Amino acid sequence: MTLDSLAIADIQSASDHRKLRVNQVGIRALRHPIYIENKRGEAQPTIAFFNMYVDLPHHVKGTHMSRFIEILNSRPITLGPENFIALLDEVSNKLAAETAFLEIRFPFFVTKFAPVSKAASVMDYEVCLIGTRNADKSNIILKVLIPVTSLCPCSKDISEYGAHNQRSHVTITAEIRSGLWIEDLIEYVEKEASAALYGILKRPDEKYVTEQAYNHPKFVEDMVRDVARHLLEDDRIGSFTVESENFESIHNHSAYAMISREKN
Amino acid sequence: MTLDSLAIADIQSASDHRKLRVNQVGIRALRHPIYIENKRGEAQPTIAFFNMYVDLPHHVKGTHMSRFIEILNSRPITLGPENFIALLDEVSNKLAAETAFLEIRFPFFVTKFAPVSKAASVMDYEVCLIGTRNADKSNIILKVLIPVTSLCPCSKDISEYGAHNQRSHVTITAEIRSGLWIEDLIEYVEKEASAALYGILKRPDEKYVTEQAYNHPKFVEDMVRDVARHLLEDDRIGSFTVESENFESIHNHSAYAMISREKN
Amino acid sequence: MTLDSLAIADIQSASDHRKLRVNQVGIRALRHPIYIENKRGEAQPTIAFFNMYVDLPHHVKGTHMSRFIEILNSRPITLGPENFIALLDEVSNKLAAETAFLEIRFPFFVTKFAPVSKAASVMDYEVCLIGTRNADKSNIILKVLIPVTSLCPCSKDISEYGAHNQRSHVTITAEIRSGLWIEDLIEYVEKEASAALYGILKRPDEKYVTEQAYNHPKFVEDMVRDVARHLLEDDRIGSFTVESENFESIHNHSAYAMISREKN
Amino acid sequence: MTLDSLAIADIQSASDHRKLRVNQVGIRALRHPIYIENKRGEAQPTIAFFNMYVDLPHHVKGTHMSRFIEILNSRPITLGPENFIALLDEVSNKLAAETAFLEIRFPFFVTKFAPVSKAASVMDYEVCLIGTRNADKSNIILKVLIPVTSLCPCSKDISEYGAHNQRSHVTITAEIRSGLWIEDLIEYVEKEASAALYGILKRPDEKYVTEQAYNHPKFVEDMVRDVARHLLEDDRIGSFTVESENFESIHNHSAYAMISREKN
Repeated sequence: MTLDSLAIADIQSASDHRKLRVNQVGIRALRHPIYIENKRGEAQPTIAFFNMYVDLPHHVKGTHMSRFIEILNSRPITLGPENFIALLDEVSNKLAAETAFLEIRFPFFVTKFAPVSKAASVMDYEVCLIGTRNADKSNIILKVLIPVTSLCPCSKDISEYGAHNQRSHVTITAEIRSGLWIEDLIEYVEKEASAALYGILKRPDEKYVTEQAYNHPKFVEDMVRDVARHLLEDDRIGSFTVESENFESIHNHSAYAMISREKN
Repeated sequence: MTLDSLAIADIQSASDHRKLRVNQVGIRALRHPIYIENKRGEAQPTIAFFNMYVDLPHHVKGTHMSRFIEILNSRPITLGPENFIALLDEVSNKLAAETAFLEIRFPFFVTKFAPVSKAASVMDYEVCLIGTRNADKSNIILKVLIPVTSLCPCSKDISEYGAHNQRSHVTITAEIRSGLWIEDLIEYVEKEASAALYGILKRPDEKYVTEQAYNHPKFVEDMVRDVARHLLEDDRIGSFTVESENFESIHNHSAYAMISREKN
Repeated sequence: MTLDSLAIADIQSASDHRKLRVNQVGIRALRHPIYIENKRGEAQPTIAFFNMYVDLPHHVKGTHMSRFIEILNSRPITLGPENFIALLDEVSNKLAAETAFLEIRFPFFVTKFAPVSKAASVMDYEVCLIGTRNADKSNIILKVLIPVTSLCPCSKDISEYGAHNQRSHVTITAEIRSGLWIEDLIEYVEKEASAALYGILKRPDEKYVTEQAYNHPKFVEDMVRDVARHLLEDDRIGSFTVESENFESIHNHSAYAMISREKN
Repeated sequence: MTLDSLAIADIQSASDHRKLRVNQVGIRALRHPIYIENKRGEAQPTIAFFNMYVDLPHHVKGTHMSRFIEILNSRPITLGPENFIALLDEVSNKLAAETAFLEIRFPFFVTKFAPVSKAASVMDYEVCLIGTRNADKSNIILKVLIPVTSLCPCSKDISEYGAHNQRSHVTITAEIRSGLWIEDLIEYVEKEASAALYGILKRPDEKYVTEQAYNHPKFVEDMVRDVARHLLEDDRIGSFTVESENFESIHNHSAYAMISREKN
């Protein structure tokens, strides 16, 4: 900041008399390039949308919005299990706030191998990291949207041949207790789906996934139940929600199911 | 249903052994024409997106998705303060479920008069009605997004002339205790904004709203504080959240603030 | 407009010296309730997004934006084969413009009957009416997005059982020469798809559409070719484009095909 | 591909009897990480959505979709003025097609310096590269969306103080004849806007851009005219369209203008 700015009134810092604490104030929908650490130890470049908030005590008029952006532009941002907490700390320190809140949404890529031909291709998953930090505690939530194939058991059972199937979005929103990777949540979902999705499928692969889906029909209810069982057993995960939205191939609406569990 | 269907296996009704209750299961993103009652006693036609869910006990395999759609197609749907609870009841009865959950999102129109010329035009607001009903109690939440003008007090104060202003989205999410109308929430927000928006503004109106906004600068924090004061005092409203997102005219990101309060 | 406004400068009407005609200028993304005439002679209420433009001669500085909105608010708007041209005329007259351009996008609902149970339900289609009018001629384009089921012939052929299928969006963009209804385009697409979509399907219906899709596999290329044949033969239709986007159930991307033909 | 696949029928390669050439067929909405070359000679990582199409002769039944994905996964993809044509060539060769069509959309980042404090921050722009190649010729179109501030001359003129302003999206769609950079189009727009946008603005910067916008009011018509003048004069640019959408701060709809010019 230049000397000029010292002479300019700082009305954000004025006092406020409405006796109303603001729970969250900050910047939203800021797009910024980052690196995200994956399970293989690489820092993968991606593009994120940032929501960055702090709380504001009842007696202060406004927050200093430009400081959020300064944090992001001070150096390349790499996010991983460890430095996400550090970023929360930096926000609360720089904004002199009791509570800091971060929500960072980005596409994440995994190289997958087609089931028969082993042809390699990357696939994209939508990920959201949500963190809250205050004096007492911090809380980190990992949200991953995993697109899969679902094949309807009812349709298979009642039809002489065929069965309707479709793309489904399975979303896990999980409190992280320790060392959990995005890839771990993807794995839980892909092994429980009727079939996983791939970028490249050659003809022998297409035969494989078609038959695999037909052999593993799942209602939307089955999908969330079978994924929930893994999440309940995994001690790295605290409270969680698992949702599935099936973009029904026979309707113009979705089927949806959700299981939510608290862990103490 | 025809006789034929009686011979077709109903595998949704089969028993399940995973011991996992599903919190919500049903249909999502179904678009359907409805009528919505407004404060003037009219039933206004609109187009809604419906999410309709029930819970599913741990011992049952699946729900009967077509029944949700049958409810919507059994007669014209009119939503208002009274029949929204009735619709929740109908869902839980028809699906034989303990808990029913409805989320209905639609545009709502209000005829407004320009401040000087009094030229009439309709303006659209995005509304969401969210209801939960179980054996013990029902809960209705009204969510309204009200677009307004916000003008920055800091920009006005430090600049010799002008002040940056922009469109803002103020969203109230309020538990309804009794007789609250969509129009009531719109009024709380529009009178606290730097200026309200209008469909038609003739030149004398444009002069009026430009000067009005300049005379009523508001930080994003001011907006949520000033609206929250009305919501705290209104006994028809229970717990609430008020948010403001300002699509900053000087940045490519938004400023955001939120106040959330529990009422007992 | 009040007398006051007469004293206010009208800088839009000032002259411009940049020698650049503006092809289109007006209002965009205005949401407004309308009625749309369907083939059964009913005026169906819906909610539309309006883009309304005129051209601006090189020597005029600006257009009068509020006049577009005045047209929409002057009376209830009903759109049908005849009054769409009248609305174009009204825009060019009221704005004193040589060319008027309208683009009106809205959901359109059709009551459909399930194939076996005959259960009735409405289904939604996204429609866009695009009109251009100038001194010489007017041109009306109807664009309809029809969601259907597609089932992959390759997957069926190479797999011992099952076949991947998914929801597809087939979009027709057709110049209207005379008396063409939205329902006519929907019919062309639904009869060529692997199967049509429905709001309500009871179990016998689900068996029917599952087997129907398996018996009518279609590549994305087949879909556009089979629909194009109808459009080529229909004299009410001039130049056209037909597209299909299949939201592949085995991939996280779409398959796409397009045929475009000029008719003289 | 494994030996197994040799025994699997290739029904895409079968002959077709409908006598209908398919203009475009391929994959759509595939998300893939890429590098984009900028004017400073860096290869900037970003995330792109790819549409990749070829034409299909009337006598062939289908295309081989997996080959598009193989191209993207064969090595890291870097896009710049030279290798975009090479990528088009690769698509038409690998798919044995006469015409290849690519549409690649991605966010592009530029480091900007605040006007007074010189604080550095990156800003994001939405970019689309569109290429067509056939035996005779290739055609490259660059489309860039540049968000800016617009301030209304009418509001300024008629009001005693203040003027409504807002974020606007200015989009240039330009045929590239030679060596044109994304940054060149951004510069044309930002210097003609009422003010440019920035990530970080300290208070002296906010004063500067507020006053700058007030001193440079522009109608939506002015914006497209003033940008069009640069595009007409720049010999690196062929035919072009320039659009501006102003998200009016006093309305819930946009103002829009467009100029389109052919260059021979």
